[in-house]
Amino acid sequence: MVSPVQTISRQVGVETYAQILQFYAQHVQLLDGGFAEEWAEQFTEDGVFTQNVKPEPKRGRAAIAAGMRRGVDRIAASGVTRRHWFGMVVADRLPDESVRTRYYALVFETPRGGRASVYLSTTGEDVLVRQDDRWLIRSRLVTHDGTTDPAGAGAQS
Amino acid sequence: MVSPVQTISRQVGVETYAQILQFYAQHVQLLDGGFAEEWAEQFTEDGVFTQNVKPEPKRGRAAIAAGMRRGVDRIAASGVTRRHWFGMVVADRLPDESVRTRYYALVFETPRGGRASVYLSTTGEDVLVRQDDRWLIRSRLVTHDGTTDPAGAGAQS
Amino acid sequence: MVSPVQTISRQVGVETYAQILQFYAQHVQLLDGGFAEEWAEQFTEDGVFTQNVKPEPKRGRAAIAAGMRRGVDRIAASGVTRRHWFGMVVADRLPDESVRTRYYALVFETPRGGRASVYLSTTGEDVLVRQDDRWLIRSRLVTHDGTTDPAGAGAQS
Repeated sequence: MVSPVQTISRQVGVETYAQILQFYAQHVQLLDGGFAEEWAEQFTEDGVFTQNVKPEPKRGRAAIAAGMRRGVDRIAASGVTRRHWFGMVVADRLPDESVRTRYYALVFETPRGGRASVYLSTTGEDVLVRQDDRWLIRSRLVTHDGTTDPAGAGAQS
Repeated sequence: MVSPVQTISRQVGVETYAQILQFYAQHVQLLDGGFAEEWAEQFTEDGVFTQNVKPEPKRGRAAIAAGMRRGVDRIAASGVTRRHWFGMVVADRLPDESVRTRYYALVFETPRGGRASVYLSTTGEDVLVRQDDRWLIRSRLVTHDGTTDPAGAGAQS
Repeated sequence: MVSPVQTISRQVGVETYAQILQFYAQHVQLLDGGFAEEWAEQFTEDGVFTQNVKPEPKRGRAAIAAGMRRGVDRIAASGVTRRHWFGMVVADRLPDESVRTRYYALVFETPRGGRASVYLSTTGEDVLVRQDDRWLIRSRLVTHDGTTDPAGAGAQS
């Protein structure tokens, strides 16, 4: 892992940072609201969605939408409400004017009639591009906590 | 539920967005700090506070304050510390210059001498108005997760 | 506790507020990534880090770094991944142009191969100063929920 401190000089400005926070807020509300196709529209047409717990990446908006539609339907059928929280967003400008974000994402779930709990803790790394006054995700890597060595262990090796 | 994507063109600007994030931060700190009356001052005089798990809305700042005072005292007497987290805030400008927000809200609690846990996951929808250089809540609807059909199920029907 | 409402007139502007949110995002990513020394670089040389559950404050960047290095190594050895979330940040300008923040901080943890959970809920109060185009922490007080009287109880006395 590259130290976040090394990238302070490339931090995006306040306007872009606030746009990205709003973008992620809409993004998770679409997902948790069951709008898998509109959620996938927030990726570029050739976007790539990688999860470290899956055998291979989803490539392209159509594949990303189809995969998430199955997930959303399965969750809905189970009667559980899931809420994704993206936070602790660090956003750096890359040389080609795209933006790389590194963030945490938590998933909370509440069963019908039951109590809320933490379901999952992850980290995310996106490359975002600006097209037609919108942000779009060109690539995303999600890594589930508990599936790799703790970061602290890695940092010392 | 209306798709959040349909409202991108009405998103508030960065200045307003940051103001609203700060407003909510103060709002939850007042509440969790036991300042029920000052928390209620963040509603308009005729503000309406609706929770889907309550038989009817609280109407007017005085009723909102009185209801929350009872809640705050009950929690304090139990020795539990509660922390409200508002997040994933989407904020759209309405035609009359008020702002509609849709957000998630989590409540964490820690018993005296005990371990923290998630108590509740909800969604909120506010209408905020600007008066005398402050934001005020004209109306709020809070919906508890687990008390309605999962959003994904609703989106498909 | 001073009511947060009394300080609205001293709120920092949007530019500073967004900088501080980004600063905290980098801060927690450094910590959870195991970069204890670079994390400590975000304190001033003479910074003071106080936790209400520790017998005395850590004084100075070197002591802060050494203390956190021990903590980070211990966590890494246990195989647990921790994630700190700072949120609900209220930021006020002090007369000397430093900034006082009051915020909530949660810690989530995930054991290797296990499920995520809430580990800790706290509140923080920092004094931040601007040096050479960076924010630095001059002092921090962290108070663990569950170790003091609930705030509501205190507010009424």
